[in-house]
Amino acid sequence: MTAYSKMTAEERKAEYAEVTREYEGLKARGLNLNMARGKPGKAQLDLVSDIFSLMLKPEDYVSDGIDVRNYGELSGLPAAKRLFAEILGCKPEQVFVGGNASLQLMYDTISKAYTHGLLRSERPWCKEPVVKFLCPSPGYDRHFKVTESFGFELITIPMTDEGPDMDAVEKAIQDPAVKGMWNVPKYSNPDGIIYSAETIRRIASMKPAAPDFLLMWDNAYCIHEFEGDYMEFPDILAECAKYGNADMVFEFASTSKVTLPGAGISCFACSEANMAYMEKLLTVQVISFDKVNQQRHVLYLKDKAHTLELMKKHAAIMGPKFRCVVDALDREIAPLEIASWRRPKGGYFVSLYAMPGTAKRTLALCKEAGVTMTGAGATFPYGKDPQDSNIRIAPSLPPVEELEQAIAVLCVCLKMAALECLGV
Amino acid sequence: MTAYSKMTAEERKAEYAEVTREYEGLKARGLNLNMARGKPGKAQLDLVSDIFSLMLKPEDYVSDGIDVRNYGELSGLPAAKRLFAEILGCKPEQVFVGGNASLQLMYDTISKAYTHGLLRSERPWCKEPVVKFLCPSPGYDRHFKVTESFGFELITIPMTDEGPDMDAVEKAIQDPAVKGMWNVPKYSNPDGIIYSAETIRRIASMKPAAPDFLLMWDNAYCIHEFEGDYMEFPDILAECAKYGNADMVFEFASTSKVTLPGAGISCFACSEANMAYMEKLLTVQVISFDKVNQQRHVLYLKDKAHTLELMKKHAAIMGPKFRCVVDALDREIAPLEIASWRRPKGGYFVSLYAMPGTAKRTLALCKEAGVTMTGAGATFPYGKDPQDSNIRIAPSLPPVEELEQAIAVLCVCLKMAALECLGV
Repeated sequence: MTAYSKMTAEERKAEYAEVTREYEGLKARGLNLNMARGKPGKAQLDLVSDIFSLMLKPEDYVSDGIDVRNYGELSGLPAAKRLFAEILGCKPEQVFVGGNASLQLMYDTISKAYTHGLLRSERPWCKEPVVKFLCPSPGYDRHFKVTESFGFELITIPMTDEGPDMDAVEKAIQDPAVKGMWNVPKYSNPDGIIYSAETIRRIASMKPAAPDFLLMWDNAYCIHEFEGDYMEFPDILAECAKYGNADMVFEFASTSKVTLPGAGISCFACSEANMAYMEKLLTVQVISFDKVNQQRHVLYLKDKAHTLELMKKHAAIMGPKFRCVVDALDREIAPLEIASWRRPKGGYFVSLYAMPGTAKRTLALCKEAGVTMTGAGATFPYGKDPQDSNIRIAPSLPPVEELEQAIAVLCVCLKMAALECLGV
Repeated sequence: MTAYSKMTAEERKAEYAEVTREYEGLKARGLNLNMARGKPGKAQLDLVSDIFSLMLKPEDYVSDGIDVRNYGELSGLPAAKRLFAEILGCKPEQVFVGGNASLQLMYDTISKAYTHGLLRSERPWCKEPVVKFLCPSPGYDRHFKVTESFGFELITIPMTDEGPDMDAVEKAIQDPAVKGMWNVPKYSNPDGIIYSAETIRRIASMKPAAPDFLLMWDNAYCIHEFEGDYMEFPDILAECAKYGNADMVFEFASTSKVTLPGAGISCFACSEANMAYMEKLLTVQVISFDKVNQQRHVLYLKDKAHTLELMKKHAAIMGPKFRCVVDALDREIAPLEIASWRRPKGGYFVSLYAMPGTAKRTLALCKEAGVTMTGAGATFPYGKDPQDSNIRIAPSLPPVEELEQAIAVLCVCLKMAALECLGV
């Protein structure tokens, strides 16, 4: 196979005719496949069925002397705090255990900053003339949407192999209107990048002009390796504290991709001063989150070691799916030099960089052939990829057989779009 | 027994010596009893233990073709919507099924009005110079706190035997800064009043000056009779629609006092136009609420008739507790003419009106003797009862034996405070 850019116009024309034929053949199959979202597959759900047969004995209703079935314990069961603290490497008293979705806790943190202000705010953000937020991109579309929905100005920060471009970050935070920054520090969404120690040091030691700068640390994939061993990762709370920034960070995690998506438990972790401040606001909003489900998770997951064993079982399901995707790309696309991608070892995505100007066209072709992917541009603020290049592949939901078909469609569409772009 | 006001100073003095002796005797017992919150008792929790042994068969994971274990279905399981719709008398498509707490849904509705505005808002409420909210009082302290926390001005509306004083309401809503009103329409908290048909008609047909007036309809005790048969109650959504006010109302309910407090499911119900508007905002905040718990509740509660059977079992536990309280008051306090109260047939509270100026003193005496009650004033905006009279009694948590002791303490304290007030 020859790189498309090195082909003659004639050769490209022939190749285009060939891949178009292939595309029509795939389209004729009437596929209906979905690689749009990081949704676990059925085999992963079946993996945790034992979680439903807990809480059957009266002694299961009591945790540290608390009847988990009644009102109370705003910040969650102590045992659930200990579990998350062990997983995240922070202290139990820094953990607030919430409901079924960390996204809701993240939204609520931003919303509280907007309506009431944070611990170190001079005023609620709704009283600020303008609020800006840093968005390392490509990133998680739902993060960007939260800050967009409050009318914040989203500032794109480029991603590097080590995490966000810290030169750009350090410059941007000199503006006091820049109030915070989104992060998925381990197996970033969608690039699968692990922030380097140096990036974390520079983040933890930032000196933002805004006194209430909010470091949103979404540790969504903290134990989500699907290849190789569990990778230790620094506790961002301790790192920030080391540099006098204890109150700058809110960390988030959940069991949505450990037990049940949308029926697990979530948490935020922050300094004790932030915790006292947030509890004062949260006590107006909720008496307590679902402690029965917290207890169910404590009984099921037990501790970090036991949870990591479960994650190995998820990895056994996820690993082959990711290899299927990346191997197909290596085989079909690499020699053509029309796209690049990483080989992540954890998280839920493969981030593909198509030839600039071809992402939208590629995904439109995919859709026409019955393969739904995350919309082009979704990984950038306001849904606009300036290069029209990034494509987020979410291989977790379809079984491997379906995935093979879906990725075959994607490869053909990448080829067509690239050839159209180069001229045929 | 003679009414205290008809006693001579001499007689009151003797009586005070007598009740003080009684008080010291009770205090010496070192009691530690709690009637502060509407917390179900252990017998009620044990009543629903079967809810834990559901969801054990693979077919239980599927509802209307949806795998309840995975992400999706922002507005909840259709089967859960049907269950709440049947209970509330509205349409399933008017129901949004949420998480473990209706308080959180109420807070979120107010918060959304503040940050983004409601369907008919001219601007978000955070951009209004002043927002006022009507608080029928005595009322639910947590309601008042929510609106207070957003800096709204709380306006007290007196309660009558038929619900809020509608003359006062109709006058107040002529001010366009008055943006909404709290309601617990059936077995109101704490008075246990059921809004009359005429009150509901006047509410549903209101013509508020604010285009985005928000009728907060917390139907917390919609099926919570503990004496007599279930009482039908009008569907406020249909009532409002009848008068062209379809978009004015948000109704709330939960199973916290049906299944498990803080581990049940909740809902809001509103017009289809409001639903479309709210879903657009909510999709930024959450992928879905806990559908596993929704399904667990659908399997457990089945339908309205089956749910009402369960409520009869709760009534068998609750009824004796309320009778214990009211009988003691009838026996000990009524002849003295120092307080009045209602005899509610549902809900979670007995609302007692002590001699004006004596509520605080009564509760301080109770506390000193080891009996914790809802703080004096809590049932009024800003926690300030202008009469210092209303005392909310929550008899649900303690077993009857403890309740008898607690109410004995309360009676003695009421006597002491009244005598002190009359002069001894």
